[in-house]
Amino acid sequence: MQKVNLEEKFRLFDQYFTPKIVGELNGQYIKIAKFLGEFSWHTHEGEDEFFQVIKGSIIIHLRNESITLNEGECFIVPRGVEHKPQALEEAHIMMFEPKSTGHTGTLENEQTIAIENQQWL
Amino acid sequence: MQKVNLEEKFRLFDQYFTPKIVGELNGQYIKIAKFLGEFSWHTHEGEDEFFQVIKGSIIIHLRNESITLNEGECFIVPRGVEHKPQALEEAHIMMFEPKSTGHTGTLENEQTIAIENQQWL
Repeated sequence: MQKVNLEEKFRLFDQYFTPKIVGELNGQYIKIAKFLGEFSWHTHEGEDEFFQVIKGSIIIHLRNESITLNEGECFIVPRGVEHKPQALEEAHIMMFEPKSTGHTGTLENEQTIAIENQQWL
Repeated sequence: MQKVNLEEKFRLFDQYFTPKIVGELNGQYIKIAKFLGEFSWHTHEGEDEFFQVIKGSIIIHLRNESITLNEGECFIVPRGVEHKPQALEEAHIMMFEPKSTGHTGTLENEQTIAIENQQWL
């Protein structure tokens, strides 16, 4: 069985807002992503989503507030809550969410990656 | 909605091997714990368990190998696999696991904390 070194995994890709799967447990995926710029407003109807900042900082915009997360900080976006992640500089993020979660939720646009095209690292 | 700052949460308790709940999503808990010394050999029959080292390092002993996890490293212990966590110096750990997971699995001993007595921080 293999451990996962997050820093090594982050060196394996450059694209922003394209989550990569690094682990699976109990019907959930552990994913990592690099954020830079603004992602789309979107909602996950049936899935809560956990964000942990591994490096840098991000802003999770909700419709009524914006939450800044720095390194070592975590936030759970509850199902049904519209949100828009943003990073002013490159940030490294770990996420924990059900295997069924598409990263743009119910939205489909040019940023959307189909669930079956999500990559394992 | 509140973010979770892991460093702040770790300052709130001192006990070793007593996981505290810091978040809940999709039927899973996010827990944190301080490890020092050896925990008991135990198995979770129906639950995979994710460990991430936030500070320090730990060893996850399996029956056929021992895996050292340093800061920024993660490991998933699959359900049914007997394991014994150990820390030679104090280490800070984040875990993801189903809400039904007791930290000593199918073992009950003096280290066991009943699920209903697990604390939120």
